[in-house]
Amino acid sequence: MISQNMKKLIEKSAGISALFTEAKKMKEQYGAENVYDFGIGNPNVKAPESINKTAIEILQQEDTIILHGYTDTAGYAEVRKKIANHLNRRFDTNFDEENIIMTVGAAGGLNVIFKVLLNPGEEVLTFAPFFSEYTAYAMNAGAVLRAVPPNLETFLPDLTALEQSITKKTKIVLINSPNNPTGVVYDESIIAEIGCILEEKQKEYGTDIYLIADEPYRELVYDGAEVPYVPDYYKNTIVAYSFSKSLSLPGDRIGYLVLPSQLEDYDEIKQGAEVATRVLGFVNAPALQQKVVAECCDELTDVAFYDGNRELLYTALQSYGYQCIKPQGAFYLFVKALEEDDEAFCQKAKQYRLLLTPAIGFGCPGYVRIAYCVSRETIEKSLPAFEALAKSYQ
Amino acid sequence: MISQNMKKLIEKSAGISALFTEAKKMKEQYGAENVYDFGIGNPNVKAPESINKTAIEILQQEDTIILHGYTDTAGYAEVRKKIANHLNRRFDTNFDEENIIMTVGAAGGLNVIFKVLLNPGEEVLTFAPFFSEYTAYAMNAGAVLRAVPPNLETFLPDLTALEQSITKKTKIVLINSPNNPTGVVYDESIIAEIGCILEEKQKEYGTDIYLIADEPYRELVYDGAEVPYVPDYYKNTIVAYSFSKSLSLPGDRIGYLVLPSQLEDYDEIKQGAEVATRVLGFVNAPALQQKVVAECCDELTDVAFYDGNRELLYTALQSYGYQCIKPQGAFYLFVKALEEDDEAFCQKAKQYRLLLTPAIGFGCPGYVRIAYCVSRETIEKSLPAFEALAKSYQ
Repeated sequence: MISQNMKKLIEKSAGISALFTEAKKMKEQYGAENVYDFGIGNPNVKAPESINKTAIEILQQEDTIILHGYTDTAGYAEVRKKIANHLNRRFDTNFDEENIIMTVGAAGGLNVIFKVLLNPGEEVLTFAPFFSEYTAYAMNAGAVLRAVPPNLETFLPDLTALEQSITKKTKIVLINSPNNPTGVVYDESIIAEIGCILEEKQKEYGTDIYLIADEPYRELVYDGAEVPYVPDYYKNTIVAYSFSKSLSLPGDRIGYLVLPSQLEDYDEIKQGAEVATRVLGFVNAPALQQKVVAECCDELTDVAFYDGNRELLYTALQSYGYQCIKPQGAFYLFVKALEEDDEAFCQKAKQYRLLLTPAIGFGCPGYVRIAYCVSRETIEKSLPAFEALAKSYQ
Repeated sequence: MISQNMKKLIEKSAGISALFTEAKKMKEQYGAENVYDFGIGNPNVKAPESINKTAIEILQQEDTIILHGYTDTAGYAEVRKKIANHLNRRFDTNFDEENIIMTVGAAGGLNVIFKVLLNPGEEVLTFAPFFSEYTAYAMNAGAVLRAVPPNLETFLPDLTALEQSITKKTKIVLINSPNNPTGVVYDESIIAEIGCILEEKQKEYGTDIYLIADEPYRELVYDGAEVPYVPDYYKNTIVAYSFSKSLSLPGDRIGYLVLPSQLEDYDEIKQGAEVATRVLGFVNAPALQQKVVAECCDELTDVAFYDGNRELLYTALQSYGYQCIKPQGAFYLFVKALEEDDEAFCQKAKQYRLLLTPAIGFGCPGYVRIAYCVSRETIEKSLPAFEALAKSYQ
C-alpha cells in the first residue's frame, strides 16, 4: 500500500498521465507527424554543436577517476568558479565558487533550497498561473504553496494582492520570469517593487523572506525584452537556474543555485544546500555535465527559431479568434479555452489531433498552455486544426 | 533562518564536514600522497575503458534532440529493456521494461521509493551498523529510521531482534548486502529467513512490509561469496541498484530500481515511482548515462584489485592487534577503535595522517570504517602509520 500523499499526487497527475498515454496512442495510430503535440516543454532546437564536441573532448582528455568520481557536493570547484565568472561578466556581479551550488536542473535546485529553508507549516507564495510541480516541491519540505490570484488581463504579478497575501508564515516568495506557462517577463519596476514589498514585510513581521527566482527561461526573450538580475533588487534573493532550455539539455539534468554572500544566514544556507544535495539523493550534479556547461555556458540556443514559432502561432491564433496575450519570453502561449472547462476543451482539441495542456494544474482554470518549442512544420500543419477547433465552438 | 530540521542535519554532519575540511588542509600541508585518506567510498579503480568509448560513440551517433531531451520519467524504454534483459540473464528472472525505473544512483532510488511508500509516522527498519544517510532519507518522507542492534561478533543480522523489532508501523525493512560499513555478505539462509519473518509479520499485522535491498556493492565480493537475488526469497522485495561501485561511476549518478510485478500494489508503486522521480526534482536519470550503462552493464570493475587491498590491509591490521572481521564484500573494513570514543580515536589517527570514519554515524559507536578503495601504494605507505597508532595505545 503506497502512502496517502502519493495517492493524492497520482490522482492529481492522472489527467496529465492520461494525456501522455493518449498522445502516444494517437501517434501510433496516425503517425507522429500527424499529431500536433504542444504538451510539454521539451525543446525542439538542437543543443549547440559545441556541447557534444566539448563532452567528447572531456571524455578523451580528463582523468577518468576525477571525471567519474564523486565531485564536491556543491560541484567541482573549478566548474563553480567558471559559472561565477560567467555571471560576473553578464550581470556585473561579484560571485565566486562559494556562491554556486551545481544542481540536478532547476527542479533539483528548488527542492534543495526548499529543504534548506522551510519548516513544516511555513508557506511558499507564488503568482498564479504557476508551474504545476511547485506545489509538490513545497509539500516535499512539509510546507504549503499558496498562490496569489492571477491578473487575467496581463498575467503580470498583482502586487497589491502579493502585499496582502504575505503573512508571518511566508518564508519564500517564488517567481518565474520569463514565465511558464504565460510567457510574460517581469520588468525592472516589477522586480524592484517586489523587493520593496518584501523588505517592508520582513520588517513588519521580523522574519526572513527569501525571494527565489526560478530562471530556466532567462535567455528566451523576444522583442528586446530585458530580464532584470533579481539579486540586484533584493538582498535575500536566491536564483535557481537550469541549462535545460538555454542549451536544450533537459535530459542532462544540469543547473545551479546562486547563493549571494549578502543573504541573511548565508553560511548556514550554503552548508544546508550541501547537506540537502546529499540527503535528497542527488549527491552531486552529474559530473560530466558539470564540466560541459562550465565550458559552454556562454553559448545560446536558437532564440530566433522560437521567436519565429511564436509570431506564426500567435498571429494565426489571434486571427481564428483565440484570446491570448503576446508572450515576451519562454516558449508557451497561454490561451483562453473556448469553453469554461479547460480539460473538456483539451479533450475536444484532441479530436483535431491537437495536444494542449489544461491550465487547471497551473492554478488558472479556463485556460490552456501551448508549448511552441516544436518544429516549424508542426506549427504550420497544426494551423488548420486550430482553425477548425475554433469554428467548432461558433 | 534555515529550517530547524536542516539545523539538526548540519549539526549531525558537522563531524564529517570537519573531517573533510581537515583532510583537505592536511593534504595541502603534507602533500596528498602523504595523507592516508580512507574516509570515503570513492573508487580508485578506473571505470572500464568501454565507458568512455561508448559515451563518445553515443555522442557521435545518437540524434541530439533525443540524447539531450527529457527521457520518459522512468528512463528510456529501450534502456530499461536492456537492464531487464541483463537481470534476466544473470538471475533467471522474468523482468521487462515495466519493472525498471532508472534513477539518480541508489541514493536517488531510495528517496524515490521511500517517498512512494512511507506515511508520516511509519518506520523503516534496518540493521546497525548502517549507511548513515538512511536516517535522513526516511526523514525526507516524514518517516523514522529504527535500527536493529548489531551483532558485534559477526555483524550479520540478528534475526531474533528483527522479529522483535517489527511493529504495525514497520513499512520497510532495508537491507544492504554486501554491507557498508562492515563488508559482510548475507547468505541464502539469512535472506530466506528474513523473507519468512516478514511473511509472518505481514500476516500477523495485516500490513504490507516491503523489503528494500540496497545493492550498490552486489558485484564486489571475495572468496567466492554469493549474493542471493532477494526478490527470489520474498514477494514484496524492491531492489535499489547503482553503477557507482560496479563500474566506478559515482559522479555520473546512475542506477535503477527493480519493481517486480509480483509486488503488492505493483501498479500504484510504479506510478508512484514515476511521480516521485518528477516531484523530488530528479525528473529523469541523466540521459547520456542511461544509454551508457545500458550498453556496459555486463562490464565489471577490477574486483581482484579490491581483493588485493583487502588481503593486504586486513592481514596487516590483524598483525598489529586491531580487531576486525574479515569482510567478504564491498570495500570497507570495520575495525574496533582502540579507545571507547571512536571520534577521539579518529582524531588520534590523524596525528599519523590516517583519515578514518567514526562509526557513531553508522549506529555503531566504538568502531571506525576504513574505505580501502584507494591505491595499493596508499595502503602500503599507510601500514607503518597503522602500526604506530596501535603502539601508541599499548
